[in-house]
Amino acid sequence: MKLLKVDTLEASLDKLEAAMKAGGKGIPETEYVPVIASLGRTAAEDVLCGENIPGFDRSTMDGYAVIARDTQGAGESMPTFLDLAGEVEMGQSPKFELSSGQCAYVPTGGMLPHGADAVAMVEYCQPFGTDKVAVYSPLSSGHNMVHAGDDVRCGEVLVRRGRRIRSSDMGLLSAAGKTEIKVYKPWKIYIISTGDEIVPPEKMPLPGQVRDVNSAGLLGEALACGFNVAGLEVVWDSQDVLTDKVGSAMKECDVVVISGGSSQGKKDATAAVIDSLTSSGAFTHGLAVKPGKPTILGFDEPTESAVIGIPGHPVAALLLFRLIVGEIWKRLTGMAEIEKEIAVDAVMASNIAASPGRKTFQLVTLDYEHADTETGLPQVVPVFGKSGLIRTMSAADGYVVMDVNDEGLCRGERVKVHLLVR
Amino acid sequence: MKLLKVDTLEASLDKLEAAMKAGGKGIPETEYVPVIASLGRTAAEDVLCGENIPGFDRSTMDGYAVIARDTQGAGESMPTFLDLAGEVEMGQSPKFELSSGQCAYVPTGGMLPHGADAVAMVEYCQPFGTDKVAVYSPLSSGHNMVHAGDDVRCGEVLVRRGRRIRSSDMGLLSAAGKTEIKVYKPWKIYIISTGDEIVPPEKMPLPGQVRDVNSAGLLGEALACGFNVAGLEVVWDSQDVLTDKVGSAMKECDVVVISGGSSQGKKDATAAVIDSLTSSGAFTHGLAVKPGKPTILGFDEPTESAVIGIPGHPVAALLLFRLIVGEIWKRLTGMAEIEKEIAVDAVMASNIAASPGRKTFQLVTLDYEHADTETGLPQVVPVFGKSGLIRTMSAADGYVVMDVNDEGLCRGERVKVHLLVR
Repeated sequence: MKLLKVDTLEASLDKLEAAMKAGGKGIPETEYVPVIASLGRTAAEDVLCGENIPGFDRSTMDGYAVIARDTQGAGESMPTFLDLAGEVEMGQSPKFELSSGQCAYVPTGGMLPHGADAVAMVEYCQPFGTDKVAVYSPLSSGHNMVHAGDDVRCGEVLVRRGRRIRSSDMGLLSAAGKTEIKVYKPWKIYIISTGDEIVPPEKMPLPGQVRDVNSAGLLGEALACGFNVAGLEVVWDSQDVLTDKVGSAMKECDVVVISGGSSQGKKDATAAVIDSLTSSGAFTHGLAVKPGKPTILGFDEPTESAVIGIPGHPVAALLLFRLIVGEIWKRLTGMAEIEKEIAVDAVMASNIAASPGRKTFQLVTLDYEHADTETGLPQVVPVFGKSGLIRTMSAADGYVVMDVNDEGLCRGERVKVHLLVR
Repeated sequence: MKLLKVDTLEASLDKLEAAMKAGGKGIPETEYVPVIASLGRTAAEDVLCGENIPGFDRSTMDGYAVIARDTQGAGESMPTFLDLAGEVEMGQSPKFELSSGQCAYVPTGGMLPHGADAVAMVEYCQPFGTDKVAVYSPLSSGHNMVHAGDDVRCGEVLVRRGRRIRSSDMGLLSAAGKTEIKVYKPWKIYIISTGDEIVPPEKMPLPGQVRDVNSAGLLGEALACGFNVAGLEVVWDSQDVLTDKVGSAMKECDVVVISGGSSQGKKDATAAVIDSLTSSGAFTHGLAVKPGKPTILGFDEPTESAVIGIPGHPVAALLLFRLIVGEIWKRLTGMAEIEKEIAVDAVMASNIAASPGRKTFQLVTLDYEHADTETGLPQVVPVFGKSGLIRTMSAADGYVVMDVNDEGLCRGERVKVHLLVR
């Protein structure tokens, strides 16, 4: 029996990153897409703002543009009377300036005339005749207005490299006149499920057979990461067929993922296939991770493709896809540096044991209804299920991580829950 | 000046829900899609499992299927010797049964032969010759195996109505032999931005003009909610043109969203247009919400379309889209009942004031690096920006909510942060 060469998760990611960088795959390719088609894409450069936003002093209220010091001492019983110098039309540059003692009507979003430095809300003003306005409230400079450049100043960064574009970024880019954005091209992923016991989902399995869970699950995971999926395929445990399929997928794709067939069972061919097809040979023969020990990594320089063998059991497969393929994308695109992982503080509702010597990922749900009485934090309820049970992952809100040297987590202990929101 | 009829957010949602239900729009239409194309879609029915998963007793280890009581008393120095009755092939139903004193090789995922109730890991076994195996560890019934139905029992719910399909659900549905799933058809949304000061993003605005932020921002928000966007359009503040555009969009779409033009400014036409085009007339003329006061709702029975006027200022527009259109979708599809809102407990890093009489949504970032020393929770840093600044939303991790009667939040106070993750 060949002994597995087991890496930590971090070491395996370091090796994969190094191999991809050495093999010309250090940074994904880029392309320009319209901003309106950029939701969820990964920005490939820092986008700088070429101008001030807004480009002019702008009212945030319907009211009267004034010179603030003219309103000193104004009050409900003692208004300041100002001469109405004109009316600002939306979207137009006022043709007049304000001098002391004057005001001008300005709508929300309208441009302040030169000289004005505050806006009196219409509710605090009273027109007298056609040319005078009483202002019943004192204003300080800058009140009810934004200055040119208050939103973004010329030269500031709108969106950082590695940013996963959100709807608000699409708005911000539009505000700055950007209609296209340089983004990373999503990797093309090929997903292969192996195992003699696997039948396609539409088939009724015979005794001893199970339906293919990982094709659909990994497809979903890949799409959620923003990748393109070039193909899904079930390959039974013949090493020759697997070699053929993986070999052709490598020519076409950036990453080939093979689930199943990576434990020490008799028919397991994945390790041999990855070893033979990659120029580096398999450089990780197992991870000190639970679930997910039988994980095999290789990278092939001629085809510039990574080949990732992940466990057949569905929870491990989905989790490892995220922890390896998702994570390496984040590292190479800069997302890892700028994206904050939002973790929920919570309190263990029961004890759970770690797996000695392995980084343990435990699926959990968050119970907000029965919050911890002392801290008010949600309780963490482990979702237990024996190996291979996909329902646990569907039921989970997230996971907690126990490190290699942790023995486990105790009831009442504070933990961070990493969310499985997508 | 017409007085605004201001509703609470909840009251406006109740009215909109009631109007949509009364107008035949109470539940979105449904369609069947392949499971592999269902990521992010909303399940339109409880999907029941028609069989046990797995369908048979299954090994979770490479090892020897045994009858557990045969191994009582086994230990490192005193193995139990069993007769090797055969080998289970992956994906095959064993052709033999185990009787007392027998064992059979079984790979991970293999079917246990009838009679077996535990699996001895290969690491704790030693073959002797071709027909005997020594087992060096005692086993209890059920060890290293899953029983038929342990993952999902026949008749159990796989996915609930209202579930936003995740990758693990796609796997779970596949495991149960489901290749299609009934989902709600996404609403068709038409997005109109109004305002005389607005120019398209590709144009350089003249003094007094600003670029259209809301078309791209609301498009992103609608896509993130899973809706289809039938069109984006900028309409300048002519009531006639707006009436035409909204009227034709209503015939084609489920929801027409008009941003801008809903404050009390002189040229605001949105309220009049919504009032005239909907059979109900506008039933909400303002929300006790900050930002987002000038929000107008109507529903038209003949065209079965909702018309939503939201503020022009981008943060309010994006937030209100989510709080109204996103929320009403959740209510009508059942998502509101089953989807837990994951909120992050955190501690205010500074004081913020609420807006009296209005439910106040304050954008914030989470500072995990400078966690609160007493509670260890991340600190909440408000993202301040005057009305209309889109960058605040792009910079925010989420928002805190202050209720109508709250005066504000104090430095050091515990709060829930609602995430803006997409």
